[in-house]
Amino acid sequence: MSTRPALTQLGLDTGKKARLYRILHQHGLRNGTALFLPYDQGLEHGPRDFRDNPISSDPKYILKLATEGGFNGIAIQIGLAEKFYWDYAGEVPLVLKLNGKTDIPPDAHALSPVNATVEDAVRLGADAVGYTLYVGTPAQEADFEQLRRVREDAQRFGMPLIVWAYPRGAAIEAKGGKDSFYAVDYAARTAAELGADMVKVNFPHPDKRTNVHTSYDREFTSQEAIDAVVRSASRTLLLVSGGGKAGDEAMLDKARQSMDAGATGLIFGRNVWQREHYESLRFVSELREILAKYPST
Amino acid sequence: MSTRPALTQLGLDTGKKARLYRILHQHGLRNGTALFLPYDQGLEHGPRDFRDNPISSDPKYILKLATEGGFNGIAIQIGLAEKFYWDYAGEVPLVLKLNGKTDIPPDAHALSPVNATVEDAVRLGADAVGYTLYVGTPAQEADFEQLRRVREDAQRFGMPLIVWAYPRGAAIEAKGGKDSFYAVDYAARTAAELGADMVKVNFPHPDKRTNVHTSYDREFTSQEAIDAVVRSASRTLLLVSGGGKAGDEAMLDKARQSMDAGATGLIFGRNVWQREHYESLRFVSELREILAKYPST
Amino acid sequence: MSTRPALTQLGLDTGKKARLYRILHQHGLRNGTALFLPYDQGLEHGPRDFRDNPISSDPKYILKLATEGGFNGIAIQIGLAEKFYWDYAGEVPLVLKLNGKTDIPPDAHALSPVNATVEDAVRLGADAVGYTLYVGTPAQEADFEQLRRVREDAQRFGMPLIVWAYPRGAAIEAKGGKDSFYAVDYAARTAAELGADMVKVNFPHPDKRTNVHTSYDREFTSQEAIDAVVRSASRTLLLVSGGGKAGDEAMLDKARQSMDAGATGLIFGRNVWQREHYESLRFVSELREILAKYPST
Amino acid sequence: MSTRPALTQLGLDTGKKARLYRILHQHGLRNGTALFLPYDQGLEHGPRDFRDNPISSDPKYILKLATEGGFNGIAIQIGLAEKFYWDYAGEVPLVLKLNGKTDIPPDAHALSPVNATVEDAVRLGADAVGYTLYVGTPAQEADFEQLRRVREDAQRFGMPLIVWAYPRGAAIEAKGGKDSFYAVDYAARTAAELGADMVKVNFPHPDKRTNVHTSYDREFTSQEAIDAVVRSASRTLLLVSGGGKAGDEAMLDKARQSMDAGATGLIFGRNVWQREHYESLRFVSELREILAKYPST
Amino acid sequence: MSTRPALTQLGLDTGKKARLYRILHQHGLRNGTALFLPYDQGLEHGPRDFRDNPISSDPKYILKLATEGGFNGIAIQIGLAEKFYWDYAGEVPLVLKLNGKTDIPPDAHALSPVNATVEDAVRLGADAVGYTLYVGTPAQEADFEQLRRVREDAQRFGMPLIVWAYPRGAAIEAKGGKDSFYAVDYAARTAAELGADMVKVNFPHPDKRTNVHTSYDREFTSQEAIDAVVRSASRTLLLVSGGGKAGDEAMLDKARQSMDAGATGLIFGRNVWQREHYESLRFVSELREILAKYPST
Repeated sequence: MSTRPALTQLGLDTGKKARLYRILHQHGLRNGTALFLPYDQGLEHGPRDFRDNPISSDPKYILKLATEGGFNGIAIQIGLAEKFYWDYAGEVPLVLKLNGKTDIPPDAHALSPVNATVEDAVRLGADAVGYTLYVGTPAQEADFEQLRRVREDAQRFGMPLIVWAYPRGAAIEAKGGKDSFYAVDYAARTAAELGADMVKVNFPHPDKRTNVHTSYDREFTSQEAIDAVVRSASRTLLLVSGGGKAGDEAMLDKARQSMDAGATGLIFGRNVWQREHYESLRFVSELREILAKYPST
Repeated sequence: MSTRPALTQLGLDTGKKARLYRILHQHGLRNGTALFLPYDQGLEHGPRDFRDNPISSDPKYILKLATEGGFNGIAIQIGLAEKFYWDYAGEVPLVLKLNGKTDIPPDAHALSPVNATVEDAVRLGADAVGYTLYVGTPAQEADFEQLRRVREDAQRFGMPLIVWAYPRGAAIEAKGGKDSFYAVDYAARTAAELGADMVKVNFPHPDKRTNVHTSYDREFTSQEAIDAVVRSASRTLLLVSGGGKAGDEAMLDKARQSMDAGATGLIFGRNVWQREHYESLRFVSELREILAKYPST
Repeated sequence: MSTRPALTQLGLDTGKKARLYRILHQHGLRNGTALFLPYDQGLEHGPRDFRDNPISSDPKYILKLATEGGFNGIAIQIGLAEKFYWDYAGEVPLVLKLNGKTDIPPDAHALSPVNATVEDAVRLGADAVGYTLYVGTPAQEADFEQLRRVREDAQRFGMPLIVWAYPRGAAIEAKGGKDSFYAVDYAARTAAELGADMVKVNFPHPDKRTNVHTSYDREFTSQEAIDAVVRSASRTLLLVSGGGKAGDEAMLDKARQSMDAGATGLIFGRNVWQREHYESLRFVSELREILAKYPST
Repeated sequence: MSTRPALTQLGLDTGKKARLYRILHQHGLRNGTALFLPYDQGLEHGPRDFRDNPISSDPKYILKLATEGGFNGIAIQIGLAEKFYWDYAGEVPLVLKLNGKTDIPPDAHALSPVNATVEDAVRLGADAVGYTLYVGTPAQEADFEQLRRVREDAQRFGMPLIVWAYPRGAAIEAKGGKDSFYAVDYAARTAAELGADMVKVNFPHPDKRTNVHTSYDREFTSQEAIDAVVRSASRTLLLVSGGGKAGDEAMLDKARQSMDAGATGLIFGRNVWQREHYESLRFVSELREILAKYPST
Repeated sequence: MSTRPALTQLGLDTGKKARLYRILHQHGLRNGTALFLPYDQGLEHGPRDFRDNPISSDPKYILKLATEGGFNGIAIQIGLAEKFYWDYAGEVPLVLKLNGKTDIPPDAHALSPVNATVEDAVRLGADAVGYTLYVGTPAQEADFEQLRRVREDAQRFGMPLIVWAYPRGAAIEAKGGKDSFYAVDYAARTAAELGADMVKVNFPHPDKRTNVHTSYDREFTSQEAIDAVVRSASRTLLLVSGGGKAGDEAMLDKARQSMDAGATGLIFGRNVWQREHYESLRFVSELREILAKYPST
């Protein structure tokens, strides 16, 4: 049984509630869970991510996949939204990713510049905006300020704000790395404190303990870790990221543990579209079977 | 067979298409037709409209009726939207009525002042805005300018604009009156020319011919009249208003003829909620039976 | 037993809820009822209103009376707020009256100009703003637009908006007058439709029926009338005005019937301060005895 | 006998006085003293601070604790305020913390970025805003400019400004460290000089004298030190911070000496909520016993 | 057979479609292909580029050449547009290049500052604007933000946005260099993700493989490489740059392969005007012969 809070208990304004209701109750399984399809890797990693399934470089293919697969939303950058969303406008919710960068320069001072505004998202009929926050880098001052302006606009327009909370930087690397329980837990909380309505995190690895704070430096199961991360996010709904492509069983386990912990859903990109079309749909149907067991109470 | 244009053929920007898709294909019969519930009579006529069914003065009752009845949207003023829509946010589309007035002063120079903005509509998660345009009054200059500002904002935010196109004023009274074929036809075209995405008109009365232009001054069936009005509206989707409460058969006839003509749907308020709850739902189900016969091709 | 909705059921944003909570639960009887002291008669009627109790012309005297009498708020214009509220800042909630006018010119086209802004209210630490809306005059277009701007600012700053809803103008005079059940009922609804958080009305007179709409043109008790007015106001909390000075028993009756109907409270000015100090306090204590019987459930 | 200045002697504008009056005289002991609950550690230190009392990671628990414990205010970041304050809006004053950062990157150049604005605070019904100023770092130019903009907004909206005045940076470390009498005294004065209405400082340690200015390089009792710090703050009301969890007796001593010195109150977080619920309340009641002895004259 | 998408399939707003229609169907071969003449080398490289054909330093000569050669547009900086475009205004489409820089300082952190605005382009009757984006430099944050503002203006004014997508910086140099298949492919995609309507790239060199991502580290023909780049650009029309002057056959081969891949056209500057006038026209006629074989279907 999920302990996930209901939409009515999150302190949401009318517009944010209306849009999240659409995402969570009028798409996908319509049961309060969510399965998002992120597709900003063309910018974040470059077209190399499309090599395993070349048709995946075509945004129209991905939008069709999002519709056929019954996703709760698709997350794309402004360029693709402007040129491709019209075809599927309203059929699958749009999460306009507002910032993004290439992975070409080193990311020690990573800051993801804003490429679009909440007003663009409104204009395009989006139901949420996405923002990548690098938690822990030396650039966090600029990042927090940039996020603040996005949050203010999101608040003003009643637009749900989904924060991609990614620990980064030398200090993180020195304390267990970006996937450690410590780092993921802190990142989730940071997004909640700064006003995210949803937060996307990587699944925490409690065994990455080198130099982490003492309270994280003992044995935790991965279930205990994800439970804690969901509690840290509090009324900020939690999405677990798929990350790079991995074995199906590992991904499904991650999904189950996340939902058990009270996560709202999953945001799986490469694990979905870096395979042949019917393989994608089959894998999605397995994810949906899991989500179906965690309806909102 | 409806000749109604499909959503993809209307020249809509992405946001307007997304929002109209939600209204027309994700609510109500999900077949491209629409049944709207207007509930601004408390302002336009005063609470006297609620006397026949006293519970109808409670906006929460009306919102529940809109949800139970499977309406495609509810049209209300800002005050009710702010205080009542949260409870049903996302469950039924909100059409924020942006202007409105009381019927206390005489309406020879009727102009409906703007009480809310498109930005309010965005903030509240509305899927469309409504504007009452009085066609033909001496105040039409101010009215057109006011509409222009609303249209600009609607365009900027990708928000569909529904125009309540009402012929009014002494000149209209002198030429067949506000329900004449001449007046309704002209009003529908005026809304289309000025940028409405949908237009709400009263059903035209071709027999009201006193002093109308010669081209309207001959025998027309009501079907011929409503056919012409839909053609005048062109790519502006047409909604037929219920008007004051009348006999059910008359209303259903009006509905059938409108849909035959290629209207997109109906906007019936008093005919719906000025009766006991189950009577309301029964009447709505008869309207839905009609709409079900006119799916978008 | 009051059927008055609780503060948590009104669809209020955080700031409006915080400020209304302060007014209704941290001042006066702290039971969810309200007794306000309006003191804008120096502008609205001129100093003639102070003749019966000359010290009442001194704003400091009135503020002290508001504090001693345990009022939930005092409503004054910007000039008095700037010069007198500092002394009692925080001790009694300030309702900054944003518009006001003299009664010198005829009021057939009455429109009350804005003399201060919501930002002034924020700056002075006010807990609400007041706006006089003349319902039904030929100037209602300008009035509605002016109110819209105030409402927008109030919404942006989380400031509760109290509307003095006053029927006025020739059309009202021709249909039962400004105190008719018809007029008061319509005025209360208009304030609710346009976004008031509280509405101040005069007590309705169901016997004033000349030319009113047929649904008002029959026998109603005054209790039936005030019940209907509270229902028309819906989630907009209702305050009953004292109006000109009248007999104590009549005033107390009016108060009891209003509270029975589900009103939130009373806003009595001249009936309070147009008498000697201890007489004022004694009368206030009788009003408080009534309010004490209607705690929020 | 406290020498603390009365609210009327602080040169406050009306709005600031109204809000401080509410904090100091309508909450807590209502005697002019203050006990604040800071809860921004989830951002400043990460969820590790919640490990000792896991329920403390739930902001709703903390808000309930603030209400039950009779605190004069709770200091939280925008994200928690947006989602959790509604439930307790008006019941306990909100101090919106406007800036904040993680402790992941090194803090040699610490600057706490602004995550929310004074206008957010107004909108949410807050009674004060909080700002962390790092005194003495190489980033102090940016910090002072950032504070200036906050102060200007606070002035414009009549919002009390509480400055968390924290000495930081290599130069501070080289001159006695961040808790030295020298550093705390300078920090308190800096906040006063730059326009704080209240300043939060750590308790000064007069024994930390390495390389401090000669005037601080002699024996002082801790009472003498805190006396001097309060004098340095002058008409800026002083709050003493609890800091990390320590023994109860040490904390109570610190509290007594601070209040003897003329401090306005205490701001204790981890010492309060890093223990079991009833232990928290018991400790709070001991703090309140102390504060009760220092009413404003 | 070109797989190039038709203008109607690109998700374009009305204004962008109107202007691109003029460029692609009312100039040049009027068959949907494009041949642009870039002439910003005077700024980017300095007058040294004019040495081989001295008359090429005269903008009037170049504009005449563009007209005589039947180009689809000429790309120039604001200074030349202001002074020279008048003579040919409307005869050849103007692509106003909005940013540009000298090549004097090193370009490790290259960022091309904005020298003109989209509003300038509108004022001058331009049919597109050009923006140079350096993909992969440490300055990419500032570059993306600068591009965002240009894109917003281009969207607002319905002005097609052509992005010169140039990989640059130490990280690029370390991974195959700026002409590698990897770098050109990533640059084309970045422009598409960020909202370019057209993208100008250099022809990719699949043999430049030092340290490129593994998916690029195998044998590709140049046809395979340019095919992939066009796919990565997706609905962003692709222009292949001529680059520095080279042998005619090599240039014509590049042109054929690009058009085979589905590119929309060519943007050849130095290869055109760094030779004698009739030689220029002869070479252009050979390019046109190629383009003539790839009409839009």
